[in-house]
Amino acid sequence: MNKTRLEAFSDGVLAIIITIMVLEIKMPHSADWESLRALQSVFICYLLSFAFIGIYWGNHHNLVHTVKAVSPGIIWANMHLLFWLSLIPLATNWMGENNFARNTVIVYAILLLLCGISYTILQVTIEKGNELTAELKAAFAVVKRKGIISVICYSCAIPLAFFHTAISGCLFAAVAVMWIIPEKNIARALGKEPRE
Amino acid sequence: MNKTRLEAFSDGVLAIIITIMVLEIKMPHSADWESLRALQSVFICYLLSFAFIGIYWGNHHNLVHTVKAVSPGIIWANMHLLFWLSLIPLATNWMGENNFARNTVIVYAILLLLCGISYTILQVTIEKGNELTAELKAAFAVVKRKGIISVICYSCAIPLAFFHTAISGCLFAAVAVMWIIPEKNIARALGKEPRE
Amino acid sequence: MNKTRLEAFSDGVLAIIITIMVLEIKMPHSADWESLRALQSVFICYLLSFAFIGIYWGNHHNLVHTVKAVSPGIIWANMHLLFWLSLIPLATNWMGENNFARNTVIVYAILLLLCGISYTILQVTIEKGNELTAELKAAFAVVKRKGIISVICYSCAIPLAFFHTAISGCLFAAVAVMWIIPEKNIARALGKEPRE
Amino acid sequence: MNKTRLEAFSDGVLAIIITIMVLEIKMPHSADWESLRALQSVFICYLLSFAFIGIYWGNHHNLVHTVKAVSPGIIWANMHLLFWLSLIPLATNWMGENNFARNTVIVYAILLLLCGISYTILQVTIEKGNELTAELKAAFAVVKRKGIISVICYSCAIPLAFFHTAISGCLFAAVAVMWIIPEKNIARALGKEPRE
Repeated sequence: MNKTRLEAFSDGVLAIIITIMVLEIKMPHSADWESLRALQSVFICYLLSFAFIGIYWGNHHNLVHTVKAVSPGIIWANMHLLFWLSLIPLATNWMGENNFARNTVIVYAILLLLCGISYTILQVTIEKGNELTAELKAAFAVVKRKGIISVICYSCAIPLAFFHTAISGCLFAAVAVMWIIPEKNIARALGKEPRE
Repeated sequence: MNKTRLEAFSDGVLAIIITIMVLEIKMPHSADWESLRALQSVFICYLLSFAFIGIYWGNHHNLVHTVKAVSPGIIWANMHLLFWLSLIPLATNWMGENNFARNTVIVYAILLLLCGISYTILQVTIEKGNELTAELKAAFAVVKRKGIISVICYSCAIPLAFFHTAISGCLFAAVAVMWIIPEKNIARALGKEPRE
Repeated sequence: MNKTRLEAFSDGVLAIIITIMVLEIKMPHSADWESLRALQSVFICYLLSFAFIGIYWGNHHNLVHTVKAVSPGIIWANMHLLFWLSLIPLATNWMGENNFARNTVIVYAILLLLCGISYTILQVTIEKGNELTAELKAAFAVVKRKGIISVICYSCAIPLAFFHTAISGCLFAAVAVMWIIPEKNIARALGKEPRE
Repeated sequence: MNKTRLEAFSDGVLAIIITIMVLEIKMPHSADWESLRALQSVFICYLLSFAFIGIYWGNHHNLVHTVKAVSPGIIWANMHLLFWLSLIPLATNWMGENNFARNTVIVYAILLLLCGISYTILQVTIEKGNELTAELKAAFAVVKRKGIISVICYSCAIPLAFFHTAISGCLFAAVAVMWIIPEKNIARALGKEPRE
C-alpha cells in the first residue's frame, strides 16, 4: 500500500468536506440586510468548522508524512477518522440554523470528541507500526498533549452546555486558537528529516 | 495512458462519492432529540455505504497498483465500476429515508450486486492484460473468492428482502465485516513487490 | 507553469462534474416502484452525460499528456472547455426532469456543441505550441476527425429535435458509442512514446 | 511540510469551489424558454465567478510554485485565502438570484475585496520566507500591481453600487479581463527557472 495514495485520498476527502459545508448554507431569497443578518450564527459555525478541518488537515499531513509502511490498521484508523470528520458539515449546519440551541451544541461537541478520539487512535496506530526518530517522538508528544487537552475541553463542553451554550462555544474557539498557533518543535523536527 | 492519472481520477471520484453522501442527509429544522432520532436509519445507511466505498477504495488501490500498461479496456471497465458506485449515494439515501422499506432494500442490493460484478470485470480485464507474479495471483484469488461470496450474498439479499428486510441488512453488514478484516496474504504479497 | 498541476486541476474538476450530477437527481419520497419509474429518463440522461464526461476525461488526458510547455493560451483554452463541461450537470438534469422535452434537448445539443468546439480550440492551441511526433500527429488527426463528426452530429441534432427529439437522442448515443470504441492508433502512437 | 501536498489541497478546494457553484443554480421545472431566460443573470454571475476562481487558481499556482520551505505562516495565510474564496459560490448565487440587487452587489464586492487582500497577505508571507530571483521579484511586482489595481476597483465598486449596480458590474468584468490577458513577464521569468 502506497503512502501517496493514502494522502491523496485523505486530502481529497478533507478538501471536499471543507468545501461542501458551504452548500449547506441556504442564502435568503430576499436581498435585504435583515435576511442576511439571520445567517450570522450560520456564518460563525462555518468559520469554526472551517478552522477545525483546516487544523485536522495540517496535523494529518504531518502525521501521515512520518508513515513508512501503510498497514491495513492505518487505513482503517484513517477511514474511521474521515467518517467522523465527514459528519461535521451536518452538525455545523444544524447548530448554525438553530442559533446554538443546547442540543445542537451538545451534538457538535460529541462529534468533535469522536474526531479527537479517532485522531488519537490513528496516531497511536501509526506510532506502533513505524519507528520514529527521537525528535519526531518529542514533537508528536506535544501534539498528543494538545490532543488530550482538546478532548478534555470537548468533554467539558457537553455538560457545560446545560448551563450556558456560550461556555461550550468559547471552549471550541479556545481549542481552535490553541491549534492554529504554530508548534515550532514539530516544524523543526520535520525540517531535520530528509524531504521527499 | 498513464497509471497515475487513472488512480488520481478514480481516487477523486471515490473521495467525492464518499463525501457527497452526507449532502443527501437532510438535517431536521427543529433542535429537539425526537427529530434527530428520525435520522437513525439514515445514519445506519450512511455508515454502511461509507464502509462499502472505503472497501472499494482500498481494493481498487491494490488492484490498480498491479497494472503495468493501461489499456482502453481497463479505462472503460474502471468507468463502468465508477458509474455504479456513483449511484450508491442515491440508493443509500432512498433506503434511509424510507426506513429500510422492502423496495429500497432490493434496489440497494441490486446496486451492490452491479458494483460487485463490475469490480470483477475490472479485475479480470487487468489480469488478462498484465502478467502478475505467482504471489499476487494467489492474493488476488483470495480477493476474487471474497468477491464471489459477496455477489452470492447480494443475490440472496434480493429475494430474502421479501421475507424480512432485516435479513438483507444483516447480509450487507456481514459482507462489510468480511472485507474490513484485513487480508494478510495480499499485504504480504504486495509487500514483497518493489515499491513505486 | 507545471503540466502536472494542470492535469491535477482538470482531473479534479472532471471528477467533481461527473459525480455531482448524481446530486441533481432527486429521489422520490415514497418507496413504491411507480415513483422509481418516474426517474427513468433522468437515469438515461445521467448515463449519457456520464459517458460523455468519461470520454472527455480520457481524451483530455491523452491530449494534455503530449504538452511540453504549458502556455497561458493552453490554460485559458482549458478553462474555457471546463466552463462548458461544468454546465453539463444542469442541462442533463433539465432534460431528464422534463422527459426529453424539445427545448431541453436543444439546449443539451447546443451545450455538447460548445464543449466539442472548445475541445477543438484546446487541441489546436496545444498543437501550435508543441512539436508532435509524426505518429502522434496522425493519431490526433483521427481524434480531430472524430471531433468534427461529433460537432456535425450535435449541429444536426438541434434542428432535428423539431421533428422528433428521439432522433437527437439517437445522435447523442451514436456519438458516445463512436468514442467509447477504443482508437488503436492513438494507444499505439502513445505506447511508442517514452513513459513519464 | 511538503509543498506538493499544499498545492494538492489548494487545487482540490479550488476545483470543488469552481464546480459546486453550478449546484447552486436551480434549473426551472418547466421546459419553456421563458423560464430559462430567468436564469440569465444567474448565468452571468456564474461566468464572472468562474473566471475569478480560474484567475486565482492560475496565480496561486505560480505563487506557490516559487515556495521553497512551507512554514506554518504560509499554511494559515493559504487557509485564510481559501476561506474567503469558499464563500464565492454563496455570494454569486445570491447576486444572480436577486438580479444584481444593490445589497447583493455590495456583498459580492466586499467578498472579492477580502479575497484580494488575503491573496496579497499570502504573497507577502511567501516573499518574506523565500528568497526569490531578481526576475521572479520583477514578475511578482507586476502581479502585485495588478492586485492593488483590483483591490482599488473592488473598493470603488462598493460605494458606486449606490449610484448604479451596473457600474460595479463593469468594474468586476474589467478586473477579470485585466487578469485573463496573460502576463508575459511572469511566464518568461518562470520559464527560466529550472522545472520541477
